[in-house]
Amino acid sequence: MEEKVLQQKVREVLKKIKSIIKIPVGISNHHIHLTESDYKKLFPNEEIKIKRELNQPGEFASEQTVTIKGTKGKIERVRILGPFRAHSQVELSLTDTRKLGIKVPIRLSGNLTNTPGIDLESKYGSLHLDDGVIVAKRHIHMSEEEAALLGVKKGDTVSVLVNSDERSVVFNDVEIRPGKKFKLEMHLDTDEANAGNISRESFGKIID
Amino acid sequence: MEEKVLQQKVREVLKKIKSIIKIPVGISNHHIHLTESDYKKLFPNEEIKIKRELNQPGEFASEQTVTIKGTKGKIERVRILGPFRAHSQVELSLTDTRKLGIKVPIRLSGNLTNTPGIDLESKYGSLHLDDGVIVAKRHIHMSEEEAALLGVKKGDTVSVLVNSDERSVVFNDVEIRPGKKFKLEMHLDTDEANAGNISRESFGKIID
Repeated sequence: MEEKVLQQKVREVLKKIKSIIKIPVGISNHHIHLTESDYKKLFPNEEIKIKRELNQPGEFASEQTVTIKGTKGKIERVRILGPFRAHSQVELSLTDTRKLGIKVPIRLSGNLTNTPGIDLESKYGSLHLDDGVIVAKRHIHMSEEEAALLGVKKGDTVSVLVNSDERSVVFNDVEIRPGKKFKLEMHLDTDEANAGNISRESFGKIID
Repeated sequence: MEEKVLQQKVREVLKKIKSIIKIPVGISNHHIHLTESDYKKLFPNEEIKIKRELNQPGEFASEQTVTIKGTKGKIERVRILGPFRAHSQVELSLTDTRKLGIKVPIRLSGNLTNTPGIDLESKYGSLHLDDGVIVAKRHIHMSEEEAALLGVKKGDTVSVLVNSDERSVVFNDVEIRPGKKFKLEMHLDTDEANAGNISRESFGKIID
């Protein structure tokens, strides 16, 4: 077979694979990642306690929650996720940012340059973060093998159809985040899930 | 020209028109429509006062607001829209329904069979509605001439692309609502607008 014909065949097979693979959907409510040092300022005499393991290996929701205070309003019982990170990060929905009265950019986790700060309050004390507040950009976690199989790489964006009753949606601008430890899962926030009437049983299909 | 060829040409022209016409986007925050009788129970000695005309002719946001009370939480300062209607109706986002702790179906405005009720509270008194709470199904208002031009009719559903920074979305299941007095406008709720990073300057294009 000619190389050109072979390449064409490979593209066809990749397209077929993309359209077959069901991508589980994870819905992220607002949450906070903290450095160990920031955690200790909010909970000086309380160890972080695992409430529930999350789908991505090693990640967990803790028993600890804080109040986020904006200029216009506050949000109570925002959960701290673990393990501790190298930089504290607060992930909100756009609905949340309007309630708080703050302007927040849409960013991939970890991309915190020029992001706004916020005030956090626990039952023991308070903490001002100078930056680290984002609205999470939608993305798909996958292993490096899955990325190779799907013919996508880190930083690519794809379009994902999620079918539902009354509110089917195609999400464009879904960024690919492959990693050695990652399990296949598309992360949406609560606004995105609600716009698509999406539940934890929903799944997506890459259509482009 | 043969009739078949002519029909094909017409279809092509209609498809072209659809792809050219820019559909303005209206973003609906949670709001309430009341019967005159229900209004008077909440505001016995206060005339409804226009705060702002809305885009659809005759519709207005009033100065009056109430608190909605659910089993889990409440939402304050929910605006009453006018004019009065034949049946009271409360329109919430799915984010709101989770905050209130109630289960609400996605329905077109006016389609209130088997919808849940809710408690409303003004500064003067309170009122229990037996039904009428919905999450609005997304839809496009248009004149009957615009519907004819676009080759769509009442009850059809279309797919609409809304481009934006970081969060472009194709909304499927957008229902067509033609009417003599309607102006061309797609109505989304705050969850849908936030999922697409959509502002009041955004517009949609029918792609299917």
